[in-house]
Amino acid sequence: MLSQTIEYALRAMIHLAALGPDSAANSETISARTKVPKGYLSKILRDLVVEGLVLSQRGPNGGFTLARPPASISMLDVVNAVGPIERIKTCPLGNPEHVHLCPLHRRLDDAMGMIEREFARTSLAEIFETSTPGRRHCRSLMVPTIRRGR
Amino acid sequence: MLSQTIEYALRAMIHLAALGPDSAANSETISARTKVPKGYLSKILRDLVVEGLVLSQRGPNGGFTLARPPASISMLDVVNAVGPIERIKTCPLGNPEHVHLCPLHRRLDDAMGMIEREFARTSLAEIFETSTPGRRHCRSLMVPTIRRGR
Repeated sequence: MLSQTIEYALRAMIHLAALGPDSAANSETISARTKVPKGYLSKILRDLVVEGLVLSQRGPNGGFTLARPPASISMLDVVNAVGPIERIKTCPLGNPEHVHLCPLHRRLDDAMGMIEREFARTSLAEIFETSTPGRRHCRSLMVPTIRRGR
Repeated sequence: MLSQTIEYALRAMIHLAALGPDSAANSETISARTKVPKGYLSKILRDLVVEGLVLSQRGPNGGFTLARPPASISMLDVVNAVGPIERIKTCPLGNPEHVHLCPLHRRLDDAMGMIEREFARTSLAEIFETSTPGRRHCRSLMVPTIRRGR
């Protein structure tokens, strides 16, 4: 139900969040850590840069970093950057006499709204804070890669 | 986020529920009412028959009917018949040391669980009962087609 693109983008963002503000990672390393195919990852990183969630810097100490602190990036920000949840705004049967959605489409749209609200209220930082010894993050996502300027 | 197949299957089921227990509809009529392409609809109806939600009867008064009363068919029954919601059961990164899901995948799976519960507690009959003058059903879904044995 959630697209592969969304899950991949969240993996990449969690990895960048794990690096901290002073570190950057190139796409090869992010691909290896997140196990996201490189071509697919490049497209996702491009979308995240365009939407202002990720910064891309060239040069020997360059690479990708989060554009904002993890506490101010929600799961919904990431989802919206790569594949927004499709809401039902008008009758999918194209019925012009519908002013409101019918009860069927209202319920389907409500379910999508529920997911949006849930993702909107969860920041990348909160995902970290819920990590406990019994529920660790994927180790590969958590390992820092390139220290910038060291 | 919800597949086209799921939305189409729900349209077809709502139409069959609207016909009542004494009526049947053939696939041409269901296709016209639900505006679901005929080939696509045939595959969906086949899945609904295989999963025991729809009965298919041949002959001049034959056609498709619901196999059970609308009050005993949930939205989740329909979803599961044509395209079950994919839950995350093991680490998508294939991390063998994970006993539990990490906090990221736990949250993604929780969101899918939330949708499942919402759909499980909503029957086709309840969808009807929430129809009000301001929130009518799509008219084409509601029009009975073939009266059986009359």
